[in-house]
Amino acid sequence: MLELYFAVNTCAMAPHIVLEEIGQPYLPRPLNFRAAQQRTAEYLAVNPKGRVPALVTERGVLTETPAILAYLAQRYPGADLAPLDDAFAFARAQAFNSYLCSTVHVAHAHRLRGARWSDDPAAHESMKARAPRNMVDCFELIEEQLLAGPWVLGERYSICDAYLFTVTRWLAAHEVDHRRFPKVAAHTEAMMARPAVRRVVAAHDAAAAG
Amino acid sequence: MLELYFAVNTCAMAPHIVLEEIGQPYLPRPLNFRAAQQRTAEYLAVNPKGRVPALVTERGVLTETPAILAYLAQRYPGADLAPLDDAFAFARAQAFNSYLCSTVHVAHAHRLRGARWSDDPAAHESMKARAPRNMVDCFELIEEQLLAGPWVLGERYSICDAYLFTVTRWLAAHEVDHRRFPKVAAHTEAMMARPAVRRVVAAHDAAAAG
Repeated sequence: MLELYFAVNTCAMAPHIVLEEIGQPYLPRPLNFRAAQQRTAEYLAVNPKGRVPALVTERGVLTETPAILAYLAQRYPGADLAPLDDAFAFARAQAFNSYLCSTVHVAHAHRLRGARWSDDPAAHESMKARAPRNMVDCFELIEEQLLAGPWVLGERYSICDAYLFTVTRWLAAHEVDHRRFPKVAAHTEAMMARPAVRRVVAAHDAAAAG
Repeated sequence: MLELYFAVNTCAMAPHIVLEEIGQPYLPRPLNFRAAQQRTAEYLAVNPKGRVPALVTERGVLTETPAILAYLAQRYPGADLAPLDDAFAFARAQAFNSYLCSTVHVAHAHRLRGARWSDDPAAHESMKARAPRNMVDCFELIEEQLLAGPWVLGERYSICDAYLFTVTRWLAAHEVDHRRFPKVAAHTEAMMARPAVRRVVAAHDAAAAG
């Protein structure tokens, strides 16, 4: 059975949602980042990067959100979560996910993770101050160019939607109201109408509160 | 015919190498970053992100290096540049490429692109000072965990090799000698023995000098 290591409200929420959408049994493995559980020797043996998500399969561990999302779509083609039979459409989906991981996630990380890229506390403050503007720039591109609507790829729900929903939730930490982006706001609403999404959000909210 | 927009010694070198390996006709479209050609209205109509690579296909434009690399492998399966028939092996390849784009490329970008994430010139200096250490950390992980050898995926040459070779070349800018990582150094040497790789390096070197 697949096992998903995740932490509350991280990008691991995206594969978590996808696993719920697929509906096959899997084992959720929550890590408490406040207790630095991603830095224990036990977890580093699973994922030497000390990050989430990590998906344990019968053949080994997979990391990196875009890779895990595409893997789940390919492993469970019956769930119809990516355009697997069309290399161009699949590449468009992958380009969207790659943008979220390499640009939007990175913009977000500068809010609290500045110590990754500078040893100067004043620099961390300046990165945190700049982060909301970068998040807005990213979401303007998503709103105007990337989100076809109602789903990311158009009429077809996909792995990209789980990932966009996850990243949209991070805007609040930057004090950016996602409702300033009408298509993004409608997307979040459509996601929250899905039982699989509500189950994952409830699980993360409960873990965050507990 | 495919068209590849690229700039000298950027991550676009990876799909450039892959196109040369495939050997089908394509149109190289160099952009001069020193002249800010990626910011012209003409190019922003191709790629609103103002970045490279961008691959123009008969169905539209693709962006994001990992997505383009996987697309080229899927479009030309005869070139055997990714394990397309094995979802787990394909996911491992994708995880490698995703790590390069979201972590290693981002670590590198803090050397000269600090203005993306902070408005404070002192912060840019502190990021530049830290960047070599982050690049070393990344390449230690690559050397010890990710590069199977002789190629990234083991005995099988793939899209991952073009990408690793491209990123390895950036170490010099950080004054990090790639030969401190023996497997990475052997990888670079094996890449330079390939005619397709030598053609692309020569084209980039000529453009950089010109």
